[in-house]
Amino acid sequence: MADVFKDPSVVDPSFVDSYLVGLIGSGIGPSLSPALHEREADRQGLRYLYRLIDIDVLGVGPEAVGELVRAARDLGFDGLNITHPCKQLVIEHLDGLAPQAEALGAVNTVVFEADGRAIGHNTDVTGFAASFARGLPDAPMERVVQVGAGGAGAAVAHATLTLGAERVTVVDALPERATALADSLNRHFGPGRAVGATPDRLPELLTAADGIVHATPTGMAAHPGLPFPAHLLHSALWVAEVVYRPLETQLLSTARALGCATLDGGGMAVFQAADAFRLFTGREPDSARMLADIAELAGAVPAPK
Amino acid sequence: MADVFKDPSVVDPSFVDSYLVGLIGSGIGPSLSPALHEREADRQGLRYLYRLIDIDVLGVGPEAVGELVRAARDLGFDGLNITHPCKQLVIEHLDGLAPQAEALGAVNTVVFEADGRAIGHNTDVTGFAASFARGLPDAPMERVVQVGAGGAGAAVAHATLTLGAERVTVVDALPERATALADSLNRHFGPGRAVGATPDRLPELLTAADGIVHATPTGMAAHPGLPFPAHLLHSALWVAEVVYRPLETQLLSTARALGCATLDGGGMAVFQAADAFRLFTGREPDSARMLADIAELAGAVPAPK
Repeated sequence: MADVFKDPSVVDPSFVDSYLVGLIGSGIGPSLSPALHEREADRQGLRYLYRLIDIDVLGVGPEAVGELVRAARDLGFDGLNITHPCKQLVIEHLDGLAPQAEALGAVNTVVFEADGRAIGHNTDVTGFAASFARGLPDAPMERVVQVGAGGAGAAVAHATLTLGAERVTVVDALPERATALADSLNRHFGPGRAVGATPDRLPELLTAADGIVHATPTGMAAHPGLPFPAHLLHSALWVAEVVYRPLETQLLSTARALGCATLDGGGMAVFQAADAFRLFTGREPDSARMLADIAELAGAVPAPK
Repeated sequence: MADVFKDPSVVDPSFVDSYLVGLIGSGIGPSLSPALHEREADRQGLRYLYRLIDIDVLGVGPEAVGELVRAARDLGFDGLNITHPCKQLVIEHLDGLAPQAEALGAVNTVVFEADGRAIGHNTDVTGFAASFARGLPDAPMERVVQVGAGGAGAAVAHATLTLGAERVTVVDALPERATALADSLNRHFGPGRAVGATPDRLPELLTAADGIVHATPTGMAAHPGLPFPAHLLHSALWVAEVVYRPLETQLLSTARALGCATLDGGGMAVFQAADAFRLFTGREPDSARMLADIAELAGAVPAPK
């Protein structure tokens, strides 16, 4: 059949720069990623669609991620975000890994290259690093305490050490999880850079620390409260939060009242999305506009006048 | 996790009215469907993405259509167009058929209903009927000759008989194909409504006919020429064309020079797309604007001043 589109002079502009992406994970209905990506794409004049592919809705297990990734490539997706519980499981189905994904052993972004290869990236790591560098640029990083050694904790610990933290103490209620993350970090960054600990050691650790990274679910709307007693905070600490819904967690408001420098979780959420957007499209997102979006989307209360 | 989107008051407008559709078939790179659908959606302010899923590019056979349809549903597609060579093969993988698809035994449009069921439609039939009713509203239809008994021929014969043609003679170089289509039409519309014939009978058939429907590839850019000798045409015939690239085929220009009423193939292409758009979105497309699009996209030469 005659193909008017093989003549570049008659290529229809509606074919140019269209992007189809999605998110694979469990219980992802509330994700802000579709709105973050699509709003930025709209401002750039791109045809861009972000679909949620929820394994719970589909009634399949996490091991279906390989089949879903292959299907997405076949059906014309440009890339995917991957979240819990598929970030490790997806790796065996990919054709290559970017360095930060290989180091972490977890993938949150898959890009389908023009040659059909599926390459795994981790923009949780790069996103937290970008947010931290922007929000706490002068923070001392000799001794960093991180609370939470789960998936988010692993990503932000990699980011913190990459940014130059001398030593990160990873605190988790599960001692074996804290130790395993510390061992993994030491293998990658060199011996002595990380150590595992349990919450009972927080009083002494926080007395001596420069800052604290919080990476557990405590403080989210469904898990309100503080991740540790308020009296352990002191004004010399900086406090970086991973939770972003709400943006203003009880931890952050308590720390700010003490005079601590703080970093909310919105920056990590935005920069991981911005880094994925750049990987999917090859275009530079405007992170300032995306930060304004997340403040609106995550329901931040406007500051009093 | 907190879900701001479960509160209807904070639903993000970028989530509303987004549509993901595609076309499954062989050698579909030149298809105008993405442009036709996306242009109309853009005018309606919808987020709409139309992807081509070419089994040749994927290196799979036509029997893969079932798996591709299931994958598209799982990955958040709202619907699909289906073309050669999958229009029959897809049927066994669907949960139901609209009447015109069931009658024809071919599906060119699959809609994923809200309950997850995949329903097959045929907008080739409804599209040709709409185009004919618009372009040749007063055409006499006692004796219609149709040239071509392939897939497109089956669809337009169903449309012509539905529109009220008393008798359609289906002419094909393959006698068994002409007879099989006529038999199928008679089973559906009643005995005597259709008969098969071979091209050697065209002189007598066209002498006595009211009009002719052309449904072979002859006249497309890759198959130039006339489907039968020009001297068989006469001014009392109307001539309806299925080929739409180019819009002005040699058959149409020859017929128009004789004074015949004519209908180009652009209308069928537009109305099948418009009917699919309506099924996918529940919104009414503006077929006049889509007719202008196809005139531009199919490379029509502007009329001389």
